[in-house]
Amino acid sequence: MPADRPLLGAIEAGGTKFVLGVGHGPDAVIDQLQIATRDPETTLAETNAFFERHAGLAAIGIGSFGPLERDTRSPKWGHILATPKLGWSGFDLAGTVARANGVPIAFDTDVNAAALAEARLGAARDTGVSVYVTIGTGIGGGVIADGQIVGGTGHPELGHMRPRRNADDHGFDGICPFHGDCLEGLASGPAILARWGETLSHLPPDHAAHGIIAGYLAEMCNTLRAALAPDAIVLGGGVMATPGLFERVVAAAHASDGGYFALPAAEVIRRPALAPTSGLAGAFLLAADLL
Amino acid sequence: MPADRPLLGAIEAGGTKFVLGVGHGPDAVIDQLQIATRDPETTLAETNAFFERHAGLAAIGIGSFGPLERDTRSPKWGHILATPKLGWSGFDLAGTVARANGVPIAFDTDVNAAALAEARLGAARDTGVSVYVTIGTGIGGGVIADGQIVGGTGHPELGHMRPRRNADDHGFDGICPFHGDCLEGLASGPAILARWGETLSHLPPDHAAHGIIAGYLAEMCNTLRAALAPDAIVLGGGVMATPGLFERVVAAAHASDGGYFALPAAEVIRRPALAPTSGLAGAFLLAADLL
Repeated sequence: MPADRPLLGAIEAGGTKFVLGVGHGPDAVIDQLQIATRDPETTLAETNAFFERHAGLAAIGIGSFGPLERDTRSPKWGHILATPKLGWSGFDLAGTVARANGVPIAFDTDVNAAALAEARLGAARDTGVSVYVTIGTGIGGGVIADGQIVGGTGHPELGHMRPRRNADDHGFDGICPFHGDCLEGLASGPAILARWGETLSHLPPDHAAHGIIAGYLAEMCNTLRAALAPDAIVLGGGVMATPGLFERVVAAAHASDGGYFALPAAEVIRRPALAPTSGLAGAFLLAADLL
Repeated sequence: MPADRPLLGAIEAGGTKFVLGVGHGPDAVIDQLQIATRDPETTLAETNAFFERHAGLAAIGIGSFGPLERDTRSPKWGHILATPKLGWSGFDLAGTVARANGVPIAFDTDVNAAALAEARLGAARDTGVSVYVTIGTGIGGGVIADGQIVGGTGHPELGHMRPRRNADDHGFDGICPFHGDCLEGLASGPAILARWGETLSHLPPDHAAHGIIAGYLAEMCNTLRAALAPDAIVLGGGVMATPGLFERVVAAAHASDGGYFALPAAEVIRRPALAPTSGLAGAFLLAADLL
């Protein structure tokens, strides 16, 4: 019975919105609220006001935008690290929630949380090793093995892989301030907008952009297949909502893999099952794992 | 005391040699033998004759060249898969050892075994997440998280990642029969020999080959850092024995990472601590884990 389980809080802390939840797990959410992300003080005041309405929370799980410090041995654990997001660099997100609510906090990236949820409850629930990647405002991801987040001191920065440039694709240097034409600099929503002046969904289906973006995402999938042999790669995020893009990525990954991998591209590459709530679901799982 | 622990067998099954061991663990090896890899029947007859000299084995661990079937749910578990190595495609390596010796068999890739040994006992023993890569006749690797092999149905094929080609590097299409200029097609020992007619160690230190190969290996390291955020990437194998190459790889990885990752290249990228016995050590660990 849900009520036999401890009452948990969950925060999906995104760059544009915070999704807050209270419940006995992702399958037993009692209350949920979405708020806009503004400066840390305003956003956290509203966050903590939400949790104050619920007595008896046993733990709160946070899946947050990054970069962040997830190493529990670090004095900076729970902090947002250097980010262009005004006011958030160095903010002690986990500590602020802990002090206000007096409960233990689980803290990881939003994409690690989403990866955990898809692996335990969603599109990759039948697998041993899986990767979740979101392609939207940024590109990020998480890796799960045997139901646990694969994480050392840091967290993956999947968007900052450098895919091989398509031989026919010239004249765009990418928009990543760190690496120019890394994956995020080439294939994120803002990169697409900067390059073609439109979202991918708004470009006609025969526009070259579709093939170019699918090619870079396929390259990413095949790199992950070579590096990790995942049973599933789950592709989420706003860019992936473009009609036909998922099928193009699978086809391009298949076309360039040389038939070399144990599992076919069409089996490994999957649509998310829990979107848009995978981050919040994962935050509940992080909180439950803490207890 | 070593003798309090069960007696184990270990096989590092390589493409050119098999290394066989009996002992109570990698730190307590009693007997060891190296034999040449020939056809499966001859090689396994000699292997089994070695183990017959030791009564009371509790288990045998095998770290083998691949590709191979490591999924214990598969009817092909323990088999070598399609390989250009004459006579070995489809050979039931684990089953042949099991039938001759009547003990349980642990079976994984040679590089997963080496990765396990480096993570538990060697260069990555202080880390949560690590990758071991060997750059030699082929390029392969394994990923370890929290002391366990990260593995789903298949196993990584790190050599078949496609690094971005250096802008100044033209005129070589690579030698991989599946992908041409994937990492193995560009930077393995045979690729270097095919391209420049010499091993990297025999080319003068100011030869462009050193920078080109270091660049591709640095690209691999940075891709792994983005995908996994490992605390350590251990680089082993014959090509890495080239004087100066390790330093060049670290410098090139640092130069191209944009300062973006949590840990610096010089901390993450490491020399192996257990070479040349990491594969055999890992085979012992696989056997011990089975019990």
